[in-house]
Amino acid sequence: MHIFYSERHIRRDAKTELSNGRLVAPYECPARATLILDRLRQARLGEIFAPREFGLAPALRVHDADYVAFLESAWREWTAAGHEGEAIPMVWPTNRDRARRPEAIGGKLGYYALAADTSFTEGSWEAAQAAAQVALSGADALAQGGRAAFALCRPPGHHAARDLFGGYCFLNNAAIAARFLRDHGAARCAVLDVDFHHGNGTQDIFYHSGDVLFASLHGDPRQAFPYFSGYADETGAGAGEGANANYPLPRGAGWTDYEAALSDALKRIADFGADALVVSLGVDAFAGDPISFFTLGSADFTRMGERIGALRLPTLFVLEGGYAVAEIGINVVNALTGFQQA
Amino acid sequence: MHIFYSERHIRRDAKTELSNGRLVAPYECPARATLILDRLRQARLGEIFAPREFGLAPALRVHDADYVAFLESAWREWTAAGHEGEAIPMVWPTNRDRARRPEAIGGKLGYYALAADTSFTEGSWEAAQAAAQVALSGADALAQGGRAAFALCRPPGHHAARDLFGGYCFLNNAAIAARFLRDHGAARCAVLDVDFHHGNGTQDIFYHSGDVLFASLHGDPRQAFPYFSGYADETGAGAGEGANANYPLPRGAGWTDYEAALSDALKRIADFGADALVVSLGVDAFAGDPISFFTLGSADFTRMGERIGALRLPTLFVLEGGYAVAEIGINVVNALTGFQQA
Ligand SMILES: [Zn+2]
Ligand SMILES: [Zn+2]
Repeated sequence: MHIFYSERHIRRDAKTELSNGRLVAPYECPARATLILDRLRQARLGEIFAPREFGLAPALRVHDADYVAFLESAWREWTAAGHEGEAIPMVWPTNRDRARRPEAIGGKLGYYALAADTSFTEGSWEAAQAAAQVALSGADALAQGGRAAFALCRPPGHHAARDLFGGYCFLNNAAIAARFLRDHGAARCAVLDVDFHHGNGTQDIFYHSGDVLFASLHGDPRQAFPYFSGYADETGAGAGEGANANYPLPRGAGWTDYEAALSDALKRIADFGADALVVSLGVDAFAGDPISFFTLGSADFTRMGERIGALRLPTLFVLEGGYAVAEIGINVVNALTGFQQA
Repeated sequence: MHIFYSERHIRRDAKTELSNGRLVAPYECPARATLILDRLRQARLGEIFAPREFGLAPALRVHDADYVAFLESAWREWTAAGHEGEAIPMVWPTNRDRARRPEAIGGKLGYYALAADTSFTEGSWEAAQAAAQVALSGADALAQGGRAAFALCRPPGHHAARDLFGGYCFLNNAAIAARFLRDHGAARCAVLDVDFHHGNGTQDIFYHSGDVLFASLHGDPRQAFPYFSGYADETGAGAGEGANANYPLPRGAGWTDYEAALSDALKRIADFGADALVVSLGVDAFAGDPISFFTLGSADFTRMGERIGALRLPTLFVLEGGYAVAEIGINVVNALTGFQQA
């Protein structure tokens, strides 16, 4: 398995996260990536490559140009406005499709955000760009004929919508990779999101697309972040009708519940006739995760990988969440190992 | 002039406000009300009364029942969920008219909020109810034939929409009072909002109503909170078309600019044929205000009061913002004195 990793992820190193009414040290921290890297090396799962550079064009296939321009200038505008803290969205449009974009950074932040958990900081944009290149390098490895790749992306991406950041995400690495695969030979592509949280951003990006199937297993949105998407009746629209599948699961769901939903999702992917698969691999379905409520054990990630591997599709794993830092390496490696053993 | 005041405002005593990426001591603090009260007493502007109790029915004329139920239970739900900080919205629906309401308080907070600056705290609901009773008592004084009243409301209200809190506001005191006046004899009512910030909540509540004219002078929304409303082309809709007038003014606007807009707003109110006037009296257009960008001096508030008084309408002043605490008393008293002198 080809593994891609960029040290530039450390440029994403926020000091604050708004969580339960306090500013805390962010759950999504640089140690996550380095601990996974260590474990990958120990497991000798494959060679680890630095990403190739694809520029911003592939990201602009799934994100709006004005949003990308905002990400590029946000920190500069924030500091130019004299603000000393990290940039946290504070006010937002309640009906965004009718809203005009403000000029002041304090307004723009909320215009382009879906949550206030994600402080925008110096270096965030650099790290987000690097994560996209990591995902693209993995997609390129598949496009070149590879069976499997792992993109060790940080920051994660699946909450980032066409023009919204939040949930620790800025660029949607998995969606960028899926669109790249479509643009480089795959007639149909599937994205399977096993992160605990609904992949609202990926759903948003492909909701009207019939050529990319999105399937997500996640905590019931009535109870779990990001709260406002992830219902089972969100099935796609227009050309994408039927190409979006959500599996909301209740508090405490363990492997038995999870596997039933996973089996259904995998059957849909097989029936869809995908030429390639992108897996949004968050490991926050783990029982020990501090911000999630499923109860998977580490061995269940091996089973998950095996089930995914049984599809026999060219597969790119893209790292998403997972905040039980001590176990994050083993859970990710287990999923990848399971896949290889299938 | 009848003055209404409730000591229960002190129950709104948040310790945190999300501001420029930090949690700071709230600008909207109990001292604001007590300093105004002191100055009112010194100025002998009128007798100060405790509010009568009107219950929640008048608030439910302008707010949705589910929103009021949320305000009632929010703090209880927040603490029951084990959260120790104050309740700060963290994630929101980007297109609210299509969003379902989450069950968990962490999602409900964002569903019912327009901004994260307003921490929901123990006592906030009690204080908000008291502020509404203060405004209603003032409206009732007009309904009984009074010429003028001042409702020393705290927390303020003009950012609170039909079902949204934020901008330090929970119940829209001015809108509740205006609707009460309509329900008690006034065939037409006008609301003039001279707070520095756009009265988005009041606009929202009356946007489709032809019987209540809303006119607001405020910082240009491209540059100023609440950013997503307050444009000049927001003129009302349906039966309310033409009954909404926004006057966005640029950074640094002083009395000359302000008076021109005020004159136009007052002419509209006169032409509208209002039987009663509610003034959302924020004094954050003051040059020394820490979160605003107009440059009115204290004497300009006297002029503002004189201009309003010249309308010769039964007038209820409802306190909104103003965060230059040292001068808040004189600025409010100046406005009221100017009105009485007109
Ligand atoms: Zn997650
Ligand atoms: Zn204000």
